[in-house]
This record gives sequence, C-alpha cells and structure tokens, in this order.
Amino acid sequence: MSATLSPTARTRITRHRERGSDDRTDLFAIIREALVCHVGLVRDGDPVVLPSIHAADPEGPDEGGTLYLHGSVAAPWLLQAPGQTLCVTFTLVDAAVLARAAFSHSMNYRSAVVYGAARCVDDADERDRALRLIVDHVVPGRSATLRANNRKELAATTVVAVPLAEASVKARAGGPNDEPEDVATGAWAGVVPLSVRAGEVVSDHDGPIPEDVRRRLADW
Amino acid sequence: MSATLSPTARTRITRHRERGSDDRTDLFAIIREALVCHVGLVRDGDPVVLPSIHAADPEGPDEGGTLYLHGSVAAPWLLQAPGQTLCVTFTLVDAAVLARAAFSHSMNYRSAVVYGAARCVDDADERDRALRLIVDHVVPGRSATLRANNRKELAATTVVAVPLAEASVKARAGGPNDEPEDVATGAWAGVVPLSVRAGEVVSDHDGPIPEDVRRRLADW
Repeated sequence: MSATLSPTARTRITRHRERGSDDRTDLFAIIREALVCHVGLVRDGDPVVLPSIHAADPEGPDEGGTLYLHGSVAAPWLLQAPGQTLCVTFTLVDAAVLARAAFSHSMNYRSAVVYGAARCVDDADERDRALRLIVDHVVPGRSATLRANNRKELAATTVVAVPLAEASVKARAGGPNDEPEDVATGAWAGVVPLSVRAGEVVSDHDGPIPEDVRRRLADW
Repeated sequence: MSATLSPTARTRITRHRERGSDDRTDLFAIIREALVCHVGLVRDGDPVVLPSIHAADPEGPDEGGTLYLHGSVAAPWLLQAPGQTLCVTFTLVDAAVLARAAFSHSMNYRSAVVYGAARCVDDADERDRALRLIVDHVVPGRSATLRANNRKELAATTVVAVPLAEASVKARAGGPNDEPEDVATGAWAGVVPLSVRAGEVVSDHDGPIPEDVRRRLADW
C-alpha cells in the first residue's frame, strides 16, 4: 500500500482543496486521536449515522490497514453492515475561529472520511486482537491488564472490519480570514482552542488508579 | 407538536431501551450543547457522513422545530440535500467507563439522531435568522455584535432546514456494570469524565476579548 491516499470519486475533495492531505500518517493520527467515530450506512434507502467506538490496525489484513468496529450481536446496524459500504467519519474539533464578519467565522478541525465494504470478523484470533485494540484505543495498554473475554461475552459481540484504503483527510488551522475592510474596522477577532479534557476520575474501588489509566490521563 | 417524541420505525430504540428518552427538552439540550453534528445522506447508493456546524430553532417553521445547516453554494452535499432524507446525529461524549472486564467497558454519552427531509431555505428573513442562529450556536449573542451579511456573502451561502419532528435520544450515565465475580477479584474500575474545554484565546487583535466571547468561555 502506498504511503499516500489516492483520491477516488468518493474521496476527492471538492471544496478548499488546500485543506486536504494525502498522507496516510495523517489518516492514522486522526483515527487514533478521535475517541469515537460516526458510522454511516444505508437502511431502506435512508442514511443512518451512529456514533461508535473504534480502533485502527495499520498492519491489519485489509488493504490500507483495518478499522475495527464492534457491538452487540443484536445491534441492527452491525447485523446489516457486512457486505455493505460504510462511510466512517472521524472529527477532531480544534478551535472556534471567531472573525470580524459572520461569513468569515470558521472552525479549526482535522477530519477523515473512510469508505469501505464492511467484513464480519469471524476468525477467533482476529476477533481477539480487534477487541483488545478497541480497549487499548481508549486506554493504551489496558487490555493486557484485564482477564480474557469468556465464551459468553464473545458470543454476544459482533466485530466488523473496514479497509482503510479509500479515505480523505481534511484540516483547517490558523486564524480568521477576514476581508481587509473588516480588519480595518478595528473589530476584535480571535481563535478559541478547544480540546477534550478529563475531569477527576470517579473510582469504583478503594485502590489506587492503575498505571495504564494514569498514563492516559496525562494526555487528556 | 407534542412535548414527547413518538418513535417511528427509524427512531425506535432497539438496544438498551432504558437509555432512551422521549422528552423533546432532552433533544434540544443535546443539539444545543453539541458544537458540531454529523450529517448523513445517500449519494450514488453509498452513505456519506460529513461533520457540520448547526443551529436549532425550537420555534422554527418545521414540524417539531427546525434544524439549520449551512455551507458554500458549491458544496456538493448541500446541492444534493434538498428533498432528500438526511440523518443528522449529535454526540456528546461524557465519560470513559473503565470496568474490570473488557466486555463491561463502556462510554457515558448523550446522543440524538434526527431524520428529516431537507428543505432549501430561500426566504431572505429565514436565511438571515438561520445564519444568525448558527453564529450564536457557537457564541450566544455574537451575531448582534457583527455587521450584516452582504449580498455577495449571502449569494455564496446555502442554508438547509431539517424538521426536528422525527428523532431519537439516548444516553448512558453512571459507573461500570461489572459482573459480581469480576468485582470480587478486587480489580480497579472507574469513570473518567470527559468534556470539551477551551484553551487560552489567541486574539487576532490588540483590544480586549469582547463580552459575548468571555461569557462563552466561562461555559467551556
């Protein structure tokens, strides 16, 4: 697989092409940082968009690497997904860009849109690896501290894979782009950086917060 | 319009029904707090999911109130949306729920999924109101401090409305639901609260940060 993304009709960026990136490293960085994604599918001709947790495996068996999604075997969207094209979107909101004119207001963001045919993961080893990656997506290293999933848990869980071959990446950074006549008015403008932050942990246990969780908190 | 949401085949919650809400107040609170939404549509038979900024008008002209989306007249999805059913999803991630067993890990969240036929907003007054609501969605009161949009800006902008009649609301709160035998192991579990927070404002101007922005920062 090439280190760059080759646009298809679905992933070619039509607006603000200067904001696009064809670097697969950027794709994986956005998927890694986005705690949740939004999964799109078509049901009875209508679009359906659902939030989901995920994990990427750059070395996964699919072209371009593998994106894993999971959920209950009873979840309708997971029953329906295999064989269908999914659109999975990852959005990091980095800032509110407050300009002098309403029209010039914007957001700083990094986003990725992935299209791919979903595959049901049936192989026991791949399922196990995918479920560990999903836990480790939230708290790196955590899966190694937990007991293995038991038969009942595995039977209740569907894992779906999506290839990471077909994707687009787009980002905006920087300050407001006001027109010179608006800047000349002397009105204020600026950027409010935004990020997801952790509050104080609510322990369900008297013991100390484990090392994997403390390391993760340092990044939040 | 009723104060409660009446589920349709598309909005009936199939999994974890105890997490659902039929209170329209909850719907509007989630839409208000979510800085961005994810808009789903169908293009050439495939799902497309794009992040967008938005605003809701509970008193808008559509059944259930009106959701407004906007963008460039050249944006393909906005050209395509009118007359189509959109699925617009709002997700607030409130916490990572770290359990004793991998299977019991979860997220605390509040989410809303809206289905509705998109309508192109052509009326000048409604367009003006929608564009003000979208600025005020990010920073309440800000639109009143800005000059009016000029003819060129209005000609470059498409505004789309979606009725807020058909929607589902779902939320999880609280701690991990581990099995008693996992609790008995004495392993740690807990909840990491997560929220979107503002960093230090980067002013593009020497003057003081205006009152509307300072008020907003107090909430972030």
